[in-house]
Amino acid sequence: MRPEYQTTILNDQGLRGIVKVSDGTNFVTSGPHDNDDKNNPEQLIGAALATCLGATLEYIEKKEQLPAVSKVEVNVQQFLDKKGYKFYIDAKVSISGVDSNKAQEMLDEAETRCPVAKLLKNSDTVKIHL
Amino acid sequence: MRPEYQTTILNDQGLRGIVKVSDGTNFVTSGPHDNDDKNNPEQLIGAALATCLGATLEYIEKKEQLPAVSKVEVNVQQFLDKKGYKFYIDAKVSISGVDSNKAQEMLDEAETRCPVAKLLKNSDTVKIHL
Repeated sequence: MRPEYQTTILNDQGLRGIVKVSDGTNFVTSGPHDNDDKNNPEQLIGAALATCLGATLEYIEKKEQLPAVSKVEVNVQQFLDKKGYKFYIDAKVSISGVDSNKAQEMLDEAETRCPVAKLLKNSDTVKIHL
Repeated sequence: MRPEYQTTILNDQGLRGIVKVSDGTNFVTSGPHDNDDKNNPEQLIGAALATCLGATLEYIEKKEQLPAVSKVEVNVQQFLDKKGYKFYIDAKVSISGVDSNKAQEMLDEAETRCPVAKLLKNSDTVKIHL
């Protein structure tokens, strides 16, 4: 089975530095308490889930020719854990232009399609809801 | 229990657009087959894992006063799934300056500390290895 797409991401500078992507793009990273315009792992994983879920909802809306417009707001909280840290992720989805039953049906379908949601769904610190 | 840190990430433009972070930063996103300098969900989740694991290894190196320098290369492959897509994630870690037993011990510790690895560890499409 061949992948439809692949990409490689290299971190060789730890928390603060330039993360290199195989297509020539970069992410510039820093720590969560650094006050700068760089991004931290919390923001990267939050953006991955928000964008994957938002894109999947956009696909479902087009497929069903719905006028719906969806919004995915992902909150990532960092807590101290027994060892290191743990993240709690809460993804709140709102879909305007449809009633709440239809919105829930669309979100249920999105969760079965979105690859980032599939990766995170077995974690008990991740919640996805309307 | 209060979080040590939190951040919120908003996607309201689907696959292609500006993803807004609560600290005022942005991610500019596009599809995996778009040929541009924007980033896709594959790259965002790959960068989250690479940076979290790289930062955790950096912490372990400092704690043990080791001269080691680690590198985390994350490959993300997108496949068609029964519904939607699925991602296979392979994280290859190399740590120079220590032997392979010590490197494995450090990686084992990193996996118990790194919050992104904790979120992904229950997925059977994620591998983290030397």
